[in-house]
Order: sequence, then structure tokens, then C-alpha cells
Amino acid sequence: MSAADSNSNQSLCIVLVRTRNPLNIGAVARAMANFGAAQLRLVAPYDVAFREARSAVGASELLANAEVCQSVAEAVTDCSLVIGTTAATNRSVSLPLIALPEAAPQIAHAAHAGKVALLFGSEKRGLANQDMSYCHWLMRIPTTEQSPSMNLAQSVVVVLYELARWNRSQAIVRSEGIPAADPPAKMQSLLRLAEVMHETLDSAGYYSEAAAAASEEQLRRLLNRMKLTEADAVIVLGMFRQILWKLRANSPG
Amino acid sequence: MSAADSNSNQSLCIVLVRTRNPLNIGAVARAMANFGAAQLRLVAPYDVAFREARSAVGASELLANAEVCQSVAEAVTDCSLVIGTTAATNRSVSLPLIALPEAAPQIAHAAHAGKVALLFGSEKRGLANQDMSYCHWLMRIPTTEQSPSMNLAQSVVVVLYELARWNRSQAIVRSEGIPAADPPAKMQSLLRLAEVMHETLDSAGYYSEAAAAASEEQLRRLLNRMKLTEADAVIVLGMFRQILWKLRANSPG
Repeated sequence: MSAADSNSNQSLCIVLVRTRNPLNIGAVARAMANFGAAQLRLVAPYDVAFREARSAVGASELLANAEVCQSVAEAVTDCSLVIGTTAATNRSVSLPLIALPEAAPQIAHAAHAGKVALLFGSEKRGLANQDMSYCHWLMRIPTTEQSPSMNLAQSVVVVLYELARWNRSQAIVRSEGIPAADPPAKMQSLLRLAEVMHETLDSAGYYSEAAAAASEEQLRRLLNRMKLTEADAVIVLGMFRQILWKLRANSPG
Repeated sequence: MSAADSNSNQSLCIVLVRTRNPLNIGAVARAMANFGAAQLRLVAPYDVAFREARSAVGASELLANAEVCQSVAEAVTDCSLVIGTTAATNRSVSLPLIALPEAAPQIAHAAHAGKVALLFGSEKRGLANQDMSYCHWLMRIPTTEQSPSMNLAQSVVVVLYELARWNRSQAIVRSEGIPAADPPAKMQSLLRLAEVMHETLDSAGYYSEAAAAASEEQLRRLLNRMKLTEADAVIVLGMFRQILWKLRANSPG
């Protein structure tokens, strides 16, 4: 019955962005302990006293080991899949939006190859568009239309339950393993690529021609959509480095 | 996406037995609103001021309508199925113990015929043997063995999510297909892109440096692996056209 024990939740990073209430952080830690997730990262938490949160029943060690990060970029740098959570069904951001039950198999699969970051925004405002620019896609929990806004720790526990549920159902089915795919690009590699692409396009005069079409943020989104492997990210980075070098070498003055 | 709307959660009675913390009662009310359950019953709550619980975000009406009962018997009197929840895997009580994912179809089925009561015990002690004597069977949420004890409101939200999930999956089975994703790039667009990338890299002196790494054929393979959408293929083509133009404009001779 302890199917949540040996599962891919160990590869999850729960990233809480600008959380205000330390009791919510403690409750998230407890939920993580219940479902076998261990890595908690906090981006710019509002209250620094969260480590004493009494709501972290049975999860004090997990809370003690939580990492505090200054930015979303820092929090997801070693992750190969980054997913934002949202309560909204209509968004301006052009990212795929997948319901939790359908997302679970994809997350579990990715978690076998590398770390997966799950981003949860602040209690009042959720994730900002800027936060979402680091995400490969967005996920929502199917709620009633009348009450889509969930408590932060409750939304975390539902996501962790669904993922443990998936692992459990797979363990029960005991199917043959899926052939290992090439590991997806680490966020670190994609961020570096976006940076060099941005410099290259700037040197090539791209922005003066079509300023609106590709800010660095839009480049990051574009790269996330491409689902590059780590090996391909390295190849593409090499291309842009060479182009950038040539543009600068040729540049008059 | 609003599959939690028209579901059998409407026939559920969430029965909280001797709850101590009014914030937990409020959080349960919010979770019920999120997943379309409406009937909250409280057996001998410790704090009578629960109706003001600030944690009941968006669920104040549900909380106002909560019924206070003196006994479990009174709380389940109009229900045709009564289920107790427990974190324990070994119990002295001789009742069937079913894991939540397996219990969901049975609960949903029973909820079409009559009211179903789900009993949740107090934060510290759970349900007493006396409470369980009113139950047809027991249910547990599969957690890790190390941390089986969940927060009260979190265990309620996970149960409600699972039941809404079941209703939703049944609704999807009955309904049509999946909404259309962004159309993938046409092969024509990818071939044109590979051509312009190849010219660009050639102009930038990429091949003399790393000849083996990217012939035009390898570029086509790379682009296929990226799974570009048609819209993104157009954006990337625009980037390389601009870079190529700049390289040629700058080129000495």
C-alpha cells in the first residue's frame, strides 16, 4: 500500500514564488513528506521566519533543508522541465495549458530523466508573466468554475497526490520500461542559449527591424516550446556563438 | 475543463468529527467549494467560532450553512453509505480498508443513488473506534510509510479531488476529443529554414570550424527533433534571414 515510497516524486522541486504566509510553507512541507517529495525551494519568501512554521508537522527536516533563492531563474537552473501552475483558464501567455490528470504521466516520465520544477505563485496573485517565461508549460487543477482559487498548500498536495497516484498505478500495472530518451536540456543551458541568441540578434540588427517579435523573454519561451535535448542545446549554442563572433569581427568599428 | 461542476460530489456529506482548529474547518469549506461539494456537517466541534474562519476563502456561504450535530449518528442519519477515513494501515477494527483511487468509483456510484457521508476525525487522534462503528468501510490515502499523517483539510481536498477526477474521467469518456494544439510546422517550412540556416552558418564560417557537426542534412534532423510549430518556424526563419543579411552586408568584399 505504500506505493508513494519509491517513486519519481524524489526528482521534483517544489518552487514557491513570493509566498506570504509561513504557515502555508509549513503545510507544503508536510504535504511533501506525505507524498515523498524532498526538495523545497523558496523564491523571495515574504516572511523569513518560515522555518519555524508549526504547520510542518513531521516535516521539520525538510523545512530546515529548504533552499531560499533570489529569483525563479536561480530556483530552476538545474531542472530540465519547468511547469507553472495557474487557476486561470484564459490567459494572455501563449503556453500550453494542461489539466493535472493529463499532465501527470508527462511529469513522471520527465522526472525519471532529470529534475522537474513545479512553480506555485503567491497566495494573492499566483505566478507573474515574468515567472511563466521560465516555464515549458502551464498546469491547472480542474475545479468548479465558480471557485477556481485554491489554497496554496492544498493545490500542492493535490498535485503531489496525483503524481504519486500515477506512479502507484504504474507500479500496479508493472508494465515494461519505456526506452530511455535523450535527456532534455537543462534550464541552465536554455538560459545561456537565450542570452547568446539575444546578443546575436541584437548584433544583426534584428530588434530594430522587428522590435516586438523577440525580446529575451520571448526567446526563452520559444526555446522552451522547442523541447531541445541537452545535446541539441549545445549544438545550437555553438552555432550562435560562431555567428556572433563573425558579426562582431566583421562589424565596421 | 469544468468537469468538477456537474458531478456526484453534490451528494457528498463531509462530516468533521471533533475538529479542534477552526482554520481547518474553513480550509475544508474552501476545498469543498473548489470541488463542488456543498454539505458540511460538524460533530461536536471544539471551537464554536468556526463560522468566522478566515481560511474559508470564497466559501463563506457554505460555512454559514454548515450543520452542527451532537453525534456521528445524527450526522449520518440520512446517508446510505458511510465511509471513515484513516491514516493507519493496521487497525483493530474489522472493516474493509480501501485505498482512495480504488474507492472513488464505488463512492461515485453510490452518490448517484443517495447521500454518501465521508467521516474525518480530529487532528490529533483521527476517528475513534466508536465513530467507525457507523461506517460501512474505511478508506485511506496512499502516502509514504514514513509520513502517513496528513493535515485534516489536505486529506479532505485530496479525497474531493479524486472523486471529481473520477467524474471528470467519466465525462471525458462520454464526450468528444481533445482541443486542438498549435499546428506543427509544415515540412516545406522546415526545409526552407534548414536552407537559410545552412547559408547563414556557412557565411559565419561555422563549417570550417566544425565541419562535421552540421551539414544541411543534420540541420534538417535537428529541426525535426525540435517539433516546431508553424508559427515558431516562421519566427526562426525571420531571425536567420536577418542574420544572413547582416553577415553579407558587413562582409569585406
